[in-house]
Amino acid sequence: MIPAPADYQRLLEQVLGDIEPEIGRGRVADHIPALSSVDPHQFAMAVADIDGSVTGVGACTEPFSIQSVSKVFALALVVASDGARIWSRVGREPSGNPYNSLVQLERELGIPRNPFINAGAIVTTDRLLSLTEDARGAALDFLQTESGNPGVDFDPVVAGSEVEHGARNAALGYFMASHGNMENPVSRVLEHYFWQCSIRASCQDLALAGLTLARHGARADGSRLLTGNDAKRINAIMLTCGTYDAAGEFAYRVGLPGKSGVGGGILAIVPGRCAVAVWSPGLDSRGNSVAGVAALDRFTTLTGWSVF
Amino acid sequence: MIPAPADYQRLLEQVLGDIEPEIGRGRVADHIPALSSVDPHQFAMAVADIDGSVTGVGACTEPFSIQSVSKVFALALVVASDGARIWSRVGREPSGNPYNSLVQLERELGIPRNPFINAGAIVTTDRLLSLTEDARGAALDFLQTESGNPGVDFDPVVAGSEVEHGARNAALGYFMASHGNMENPVSRVLEHYFWQCSIRASCQDLALAGLTLARHGARADGSRLLTGNDAKRINAIMLTCGTYDAAGEFAYRVGLPGKSGVGGGILAIVPGRCAVAVWSPGLDSRGNSVAGVAALDRFTTLTGWSVF
Amino acid sequence: MIPAPADYQRLLEQVLGDIEPEIGRGRVADHIPALSSVDPHQFAMAVADIDGSVTGVGACTEPFSIQSVSKVFALALVVASDGARIWSRVGREPSGNPYNSLVQLERELGIPRNPFINAGAIVTTDRLLSLTEDARGAALDFLQTESGNPGVDFDPVVAGSEVEHGARNAALGYFMASHGNMENPVSRVLEHYFWQCSIRASCQDLALAGLTLARHGARADGSRLLTGNDAKRINAIMLTCGTYDAAGEFAYRVGLPGKSGVGGGILAIVPGRCAVAVWSPGLDSRGNSVAGVAALDRFTTLTGWSVF
Amino acid sequence: MIPAPADYQRLLEQVLGDIEPEIGRGRVADHIPALSSVDPHQFAMAVADIDGSVTGVGACTEPFSIQSVSKVFALALVVASDGARIWSRVGREPSGNPYNSLVQLERELGIPRNPFINAGAIVTTDRLLSLTEDARGAALDFLQTESGNPGVDFDPVVAGSEVEHGARNAALGYFMASHGNMENPVSRVLEHYFWQCSIRASCQDLALAGLTLARHGARADGSRLLTGNDAKRINAIMLTCGTYDAAGEFAYRVGLPGKSGVGGGILAIVPGRCAVAVWSPGLDSRGNSVAGVAALDRFTTLTGWSVF
Repeated sequence: MIPAPADYQRLLEQVLGDIEPEIGRGRVADHIPALSSVDPHQFAMAVADIDGSVTGVGACTEPFSIQSVSKVFALALVVASDGARIWSRVGREPSGNPYNSLVQLERELGIPRNPFINAGAIVTTDRLLSLTEDARGAALDFLQTESGNPGVDFDPVVAGSEVEHGARNAALGYFMASHGNMENPVSRVLEHYFWQCSIRASCQDLALAGLTLARHGARADGSRLLTGNDAKRINAIMLTCGTYDAAGEFAYRVGLPGKSGVGGGILAIVPGRCAVAVWSPGLDSRGNSVAGVAALDRFTTLTGWSVF
Repeated sequence: MIPAPADYQRLLEQVLGDIEPEIGRGRVADHIPALSSVDPHQFAMAVADIDGSVTGVGACTEPFSIQSVSKVFALALVVASDGARIWSRVGREPSGNPYNSLVQLERELGIPRNPFINAGAIVTTDRLLSLTEDARGAALDFLQTESGNPGVDFDPVVAGSEVEHGARNAALGYFMASHGNMENPVSRVLEHYFWQCSIRASCQDLALAGLTLARHGARADGSRLLTGNDAKRINAIMLTCGTYDAAGEFAYRVGLPGKSGVGGGILAIVPGRCAVAVWSPGLDSRGNSVAGVAALDRFTTLTGWSVF
Repeated sequence: MIPAPADYQRLLEQVLGDIEPEIGRGRVADHIPALSSVDPHQFAMAVADIDGSVTGVGACTEPFSIQSVSKVFALALVVASDGARIWSRVGREPSGNPYNSLVQLERELGIPRNPFINAGAIVTTDRLLSLTEDARGAALDFLQTESGNPGVDFDPVVAGSEVEHGARNAALGYFMASHGNMENPVSRVLEHYFWQCSIRASCQDLALAGLTLARHGARADGSRLLTGNDAKRINAIMLTCGTYDAAGEFAYRVGLPGKSGVGGGILAIVPGRCAVAVWSPGLDSRGNSVAGVAALDRFTTLTGWSVF
Repeated sequence: MIPAPADYQRLLEQVLGDIEPEIGRGRVADHIPALSSVDPHQFAMAVADIDGSVTGVGACTEPFSIQSVSKVFALALVVASDGARIWSRVGREPSGNPYNSLVQLERELGIPRNPFINAGAIVTTDRLLSLTEDARGAALDFLQTESGNPGVDFDPVVAGSEVEHGARNAALGYFMASHGNMENPVSRVLEHYFWQCSIRASCQDLALAGLTLARHGARADGSRLLTGNDAKRINAIMLTCGTYDAAGEFAYRVGLPGKSGVGGGILAIVPGRCAVAVWSPGLDSRGNSVAGVAALDRFTTLTGWSVF
């Protein structure tokens, strides 16, 4: 059942060969200077099997800015402590709103649609801050521990740049505060949120950290972070809400729970089998990595591991 | 691997026992008189295994108005002929819009979000009409053939009532026509759409008809309706868009591709394994059967067959 | 107090001289073929004094398609019979919605924002049809009588073209019917609406017909169509809602109650003094005549007759 | 032409007698504690004639929180310095949006609809701050000077309370900053905005300060604040946008340019004749004083001074 590492290696090499023309396509994120200078021609992909082995191609040990992929880990840490309680403060439905969340947030009285849009992730970070007094630290610690790589770290330049250019996220935070949906001071929550998004990790690190969701909640050391049901549920939310306004498209093409970030990374889960991380900085119009989606599409086509 | 019929029988009986308190909860659809008079205390559930055997509990041979469940079959028939061409006229993203589709339809210039909201299903029916000259007949024929039950039929009272109370769907149709997204006269498309929704079938019939999607596109007679990829993709759309504004919730609780109707029916697919149909007329605030969702939730909890 | 005709003549000639560079600017309405072929370089302006005398420049006896200017007369006729009752079916607030009315209509459950957006005018026509059994005839009769010109007439080519291209208005009508806000069959109301919009009249005709509103409700023969208060109130609605999404801009520049049409006509009221009609087919991005607005702007600057 | 003070006195007494049953109706503003404790049974009305005389009834020298009425003065001061330049940063159209401005602000990329909704007034204050380095001081100085009352002052309790409960306005400010529509730091602009809104003045003070707009731009000392055209234009914006989502209704009933505040005050202008201030704390569902609107309605009915 478990493919040998050599099989994974051949598989990833074939994927890379097949999607090579897509690498470099799309536009690099330009909302903050620290991201806009990244070379778009980079690509990496890594698979971590539930047995703990990891295989990769491309720059798979090169750290990049994981950005919104961090939202999965923050959510998992909150659900681990709080169980279902977080769902009174954030929904679980796709946002379906191309021009983004303020409209919906207003209509729905400060309750964000789901934990993977910015407003929802700010709520998650707010809660993680209440639970741990160090939201960004908790997210970093989880990534370091699961990847076994103490070199996973914040990027202070990116974090600082986000704070400086973060007026829109500040608007979201204050708007939710005006509806009573913020436990900590907005400026403090935003700081933790921006630092958490600034974490740099490699595809190999991300795939290993994602294994907890592929292993139905069990961490690398065998301890349990999430119940099996909660792990499944986080996977369900990744599938319906994990790739911005393109969740339907991603489900249609790739057919796996996945969470993308504007740094060009995507983490996808094959429940019971493996976690896959891919990175390539060129983004499509909805903010997902062009080569990354293509690689995951090819990966499920070759393996037949779509959940459908 | 294939459970014996006896196992399915025990499983369904346990599900029924566990969710019995939910039966009768919720409100029966009241937008047309013909549906509002249905007894809410009815319940049925049937599983069709990919080997073609079918097992049921409750009123599982009792026909009911399948309503929007018919949209899955219409879509499958269009994709079977047209492949990916339909996606230039209708999207594949969740609608995410609690007060429904006109707002979105306006913003997106007459292109409905997905084929399972009313506007999108009207586009699908329009295309099926162009392809077959008898959209409602094509849908009925598919259901009769796959279920092996020639008694599956339209309900002229329901169809007539829909036509009479269908001003909102007429508005959708004319609005799309104003954007050039209608091939046939609006009134003719609407008539086929309403008749197609009026089809009466039992849980047993629906589960058998759903098998094509569980069998990756193969019909009961072994012929191929859809490619394996197209069948997976329709399952993906069912998961992200199949239960109105509660698709995220359904994925979270049930974890299967599913399509619901306001008659109280739901068809769910366990890819590679079986199709499950459930029926109970009491609806929650988003139009999905209360006892139906509870039964599917219990079903995946007991079997572990969530796709996540 | 009443300027001599000669003074009006000099005034209008000065206006025409001052705004001449604006004539021909903008785009002719192109939603129906019958309007898109009009020569954009035409211009006419006429002032009807409350003493009944009329003065004009340019092609001021040339009939043109009055389009939405007809909505003022339909509203006046409904208020004349029904008083305030119509306001339970249509609001009196500016729509403020650049991409038009369906969104708002949905949010506000089928009650259009005001009687001058299409949805609101369809409601007015529906009511006029209930009151008179011939809505389009009632509007035409009023225009013929007040202008003293039996040549004012429908344009069957324009009316037919509107019916053929009227899918969007059909969508509005069916949507309101779905909310119970339609007294007559949608298709019949739409026909009357399109014919009423197709009326051809000249600036001279329109200015004379507008006098009823300048004379606080009194018709040409001295009989009373509206109470003084109702006439003032229709003027107020013209000022806040009469020029599509540019009502604020029109109030800011011109400072008079006015109603525009996509045929390039505008009727403006100087309460207690005169009615002014202007026509030039080139439209700005909001559907108002470029040269028409410029002429009215110049007119109130020269006379100081802005209501502010 | 100018009524004697005795005539104004009789007029106001008649208005007060006629609308007395309305006093105490509605709900007092409750968004900040400092306002919610006001006695709703208070009423005052004052008329300042363009000759500078002032007449009042009720508690017409009692100061109250002028709140959004201050936006008129801030706008006038900005236009006095900047002329039309401000209109590149804020529109002049009614907002027409019952659930307020964030939706529109998002759709229109951070450009508020008009200077009288909160977002627009924050832009005006930002500009006034750039022009004067003391926006709140400039507004207070104008009110003190025109009213001849050095006792007009800020209310530090109200200002502090607004700052504390101002998360929603902070959201608006940060959102506009994210679109580059803020010249000064958001927190500094908000502080000036909240202090400016906290000004306490009486009906007599407000009516005298409003005279500049009734006198086509001339201040009490004969100097010119605004050109005649700019004064007319501010009146036009008051009429189309001055009373929140009820501008159409206010134009329909009262027919005067007016600006209301949630403290229960309304300032109305009769161009060329007088300024009228009214105050009663009970608000209708749209935030306008119930007795205040009724009094102005009665005032224009008795005088015939509606602009229509």
